[in-house]
Amino acid sequence: MEPYKAAIPIQEALRRGEGKVTLRGWIHRKRVLKEKIFILLRDSTGVIQLVLPRDKFKDLEDLNLESALVVTGALVKEPRAPGGVEMHVESVDWVYRGEPYPINEDAVAADSEYLLDVRHLWIRSRKMQAVLKIRHTVFGAIHEYFRKNGFYEVHPPMFITAAVEGGATLFKVQYFDKIVYLTQSSQFYLEALIYGLEKVYTIAPSFRAEPSRTRRHLTEFWHAEMEIAWAGMEDAVLVGEGVISHVVEKVLDERQEELRLLGRRIEPLEKAKPPFYRVSYDEAVDILQKKGFKIGWGDDIGADEERALSQDFDKPIVLYGFPEKVKAFYHRNNPRRPEVTLSFDVLLPEGYGEVIGGGERIYQAEELIEKIKRFGLNPQDYWWYIDLRRYGSVPHSGFGLGVDRLTMWIVGADHIRDVVPFPRDVRRTAP
Amino acid sequence: MEPYKAAIPIQEALRRGEGKVTLRGWIHRKRVLKEKIFILLRDSTGVIQLVLPRDKFKDLEDLNLESALVVTGALVKEPRAPGGVEMHVESVDWVYRGEPYPINEDAVAADSEYLLDVRHLWIRSRKMQAVLKIRHTVFGAIHEYFRKNGFYEVHPPMFITAAVEGGATLFKVQYFDKIVYLTQSSQFYLEALIYGLEKVYTIAPSFRAEPSRTRRHLTEFWHAEMEIAWAGMEDAVLVGEGVISHVVEKVLDERQEELRLLGRRIEPLEKAKPPFYRVSYDEAVDILQKKGFKIGWGDDIGADEERALSQDFDKPIVLYGFPEKVKAFYHRNNPRRPEVTLSFDVLLPEGYGEVIGGGERIYQAEELIEKIKRFGLNPQDYWWYIDLRRYGSVPHSGFGLGVDRLTMWIVGADHIRDVVPFPRDVRRTAP
Ligand SMILES: [Mg+2]
Ligand SMILES: [Mg+2]
Repeated sequence: MEPYKAAIPIQEALRRGEGKVTLRGWIHRKRVLKEKIFILLRDSTGVIQLVLPRDKFKDLEDLNLESALVVTGALVKEPRAPGGVEMHVESVDWVYRGEPYPINEDAVAADSEYLLDVRHLWIRSRKMQAVLKIRHTVFGAIHEYFRKNGFYEVHPPMFITAAVEGGATLFKVQYFDKIVYLTQSSQFYLEALIYGLEKVYTIAPSFRAEPSRTRRHLTEFWHAEMEIAWAGMEDAVLVGEGVISHVVEKVLDERQEELRLLGRRIEPLEKAKPPFYRVSYDEAVDILQKKGFKIGWGDDIGADEERALSQDFDKPIVLYGFPEKVKAFYHRNNPRRPEVTLSFDVLLPEGYGEVIGGGERIYQAEELIEKIKRFGLNPQDYWWYIDLRRYGSVPHSGFGLGVDRLTMWIVGADHIRDVVPFPRDVRRTAP
Repeated sequence: MEPYKAAIPIQEALRRGEGKVTLRGWIHRKRVLKEKIFILLRDSTGVIQLVLPRDKFKDLEDLNLESALVVTGALVKEPRAPGGVEMHVESVDWVYRGEPYPINEDAVAADSEYLLDVRHLWIRSRKMQAVLKIRHTVFGAIHEYFRKNGFYEVHPPMFITAAVEGGATLFKVQYFDKIVYLTQSSQFYLEALIYGLEKVYTIAPSFRAEPSRTRRHLTEFWHAEMEIAWAGMEDAVLVGEGVISHVVEKVLDERQEELRLLGRRIEPLEKAKPPFYRVSYDEAVDILQKKGFKIGWGDDIGADEERALSQDFDKPIVLYGFPEKVKAFYHRNNPRRPEVTLSFDVLLPEGYGEVIGGGERIYQAEELIEKIKRFGLNPQDYWWYIDLRRYGSVPHSGFGLGVDRLTMWIVGADHIRDVVPFPRDVRRTAP
C-alpha cells in the first residue's frame, strides 16, 4: 500500500488531539531552531504544527515551502500551536522536494498582477481555498434551491446564431466554414423549454466581450438563469429572494470558518432575508437626484448609481418598473402603465450593485413583433423566439443571476476576479 | 388574481380523482364528437382528459393543438381515460389560441432533420420531456455523488491558450485582438486545484471541432471531470464505478415513468452495479482478434472495436492499461511495465462504448518533461502544467465523463442529439 493511504485529515487529527496517526500534506511554514524543526503542514482541511527532532531529520532542514510530506507521529495537546494540537513526528514516510516556492508574503503584498501570473500556484493559498470552498457552497445551494422548488435543470447551447440583446459584446467563433457566437444568456432557450417543463433553470457559463477592465466584469462568468411558465414579475421576484437568501443561509451554516479566515463581516449576510426592500424606478430616480446625480426619468441606472443606491440599504433591494427604453425588447410592458416594463433588478447592499436582472416576458405574438419593430430590430432574426408565441403561449417570467457577483458579495471581495479560480478579462487568458 | 394561479398539477388531479379543481396546460390531443369535445390536456406533470359539452363551448371547437387553457370542473373516475380520471369542464377561465401546430405524427415519423429544424417546438413533446427529466436526474445525481464524497465543485475557464491533447479539434475564438481556444477538457486546471482542495470536480461544457456527424459526437457537450490528490488509477476507477452506479440508481428510483414512456428496457440498468468488469488492454486485443478485427498490440481501440467489446458484456467494462502511444502524454507509465500507462476507459454495455477516460497523471517534473519531449511536443507550451510539479507534487488521478453519452445509454437513445435540448454539430447551430 502507498504510504499516503494511511493518512487521516488534519482536521480529524486536531479533533482527536492524541494518539499516533499518519498525516499528509504540504509545507505551509517552516522554522529551523537549534534542536527542532517546526513545520506547519497544510491539507485541504486545516493546518497542524509538526515538531521534528533536528538530529534525526537533518535532511529535511532545507525543504522548501509547498514540498509534500507523509508523516507519522504522536498527537500532543499544545495550547501555543494553531488548533491547540501538534504532532511529534516519528517517521517521514514519503517526501516530494519542491523547488524554492515563488510566492512569499512580499509577493502577495506587492502585486496582484503577479498573483494572476502564477494563479495556478496562488490557488493553493489558504485565502483562495476559503473563497473556493464558499463558492462550492454557493453553487450547491443554488442547485438545491431550484431542485427543491420543482425546477428542472436544463442545458441550453453555448453556440448561438442570434443575440439576446444586440451583438456588440458577443464573441465570434470560427465554426467550420461559418461564424457563430458564444451565448450571453440562455433566456430564449429557457423560454422554449417552459412549454414542456414549466419551471426550468440552468447554471452555465455565459460570455461577454467586455473590452474594459472593471471590478464587476469578466469575459466569462457563471450564470444561473431560470424561467417559469404561468408567472408574473412578482413570482420571479419571490424566486430571486428565495434563492439569494437560501444561498446566504447555507454559507452562514457551513462556511463560518472560511468567512472568518477572510475577515468577512457577517452582519450584512445575516440580514439578507426576504422580503428584500422594494424600490420603484421612480423612487430610485428621486433618491439619486437628492444625492446629486444628474439623472432624469427615463435614464438608465448605471453602475455608479447602483453603487450609491445599494450603499443606502442594509439588505438587498428589488428595483422594479424600469422605463421601456432602458430594458431589452422582450420585457412585457405594464398594461396599466405602458411606459414602464414589468422588469426588475436585484441589487446587493454595501455598494455591490446588480446581481439579478429579470421580469415578465411578452407572451403574445403580435405584441412581441410590434415591439421588436419599435426597437428597430428585424423580426426575422428572432423567428424561433417569435414562434414560441405562435402556439399555446402563456404568461411567464424569469431572471439571470450572476453567480460570481453573488459570491463576490458573500466573501466581501473587492474584485470579481478574486472569486474565480482562473479569471478571464480583456488582457488575461492564461494560465 | 390571475386565473391560472388557482390551478393544481394534473398529476395531483389524477391522484385525487374527485372534487372540483382548476387545471392549466396545453392541448395535446383533441376530438370533436356530436355532443362533446374531448381534449387531452398536458402540463409538465401528466395528461388528463377534459370533457366539454359542445353546445356550451362551441367557440373551443376549432382550437389548435398546443393552444393553452385554464379550466375548472369536476374530476370523475373514468377507467377508459388515460390515468383513470377525467374532468367534466364547467368553465374555461383563460385561453391562448395557437396557430395550426406544425408537428404532427406524420412529421415525427418522416424526418428527423425536420424535428431538429423545429427543435424549439419539438422539446414540448412528451418524449423529449421524458428525456429531459431523466437528464435532470442524471446531472443532479452526479453533483450529489461528488458532494457526498467530499469533492469540491470548481469552475475552470472555458477560454484557454493551450490544448490538453493537441490542437486539431479546437475551436478558435476572436478574443479582442488575439485568438484563444475553447476548452476540450478542464483536466489541467483540476490538477492545479488539487494542491489546495485535494478532491475537485466540475460539470461544464466542453467543445470539440468534430467535423463529421456521428452518433456519439457533438461540437459542444457536458463534461463531468474530477481529480483527486494522493490517488492512483484504481482510486479513480472506484470513483467512476461509484458515480455511474449512483446515477443509474437515482434514475431507476425517480424516473420509472419516463423510462416506461421511452420504452427503455431496465434490466441493463439494474445490472450496472460495482464492481464493473475489468478487462486489460491485452485481453481486449485478444478478444477483438478472435472476433476477426485486424488489431495488433499497440493499436488504438476505436469506436467500432469499443462497440464490439461492449456488446459482449452485460454491465459496464473498465478497460485499462493502454499502451503509451495511444494515450496522451500526461498519463503515468506503469513503473512495473513501462510500455503501458496507468490509464483506463469505462465502456457502457449494449454497444454504447466509451463514457469515461481517465487514469493516473505523471506527478514528477522530470518524468513529465521527458515524456512531453518524447511525444514531440514543446515543454514551453505546458509551462504552468509543468510548474505544478516543480513544487510539492503528489500522486494523483482523475477522469472525464461524457454526461450526454451517459444519458444516451440510460434512456436507450440511438443518437446523442436525442438527449440534448439544442444539439450542435457540424451542420446545425440553430435554433
Ligand atoms: Mg442594471
Ligand atoms: Mg477510447
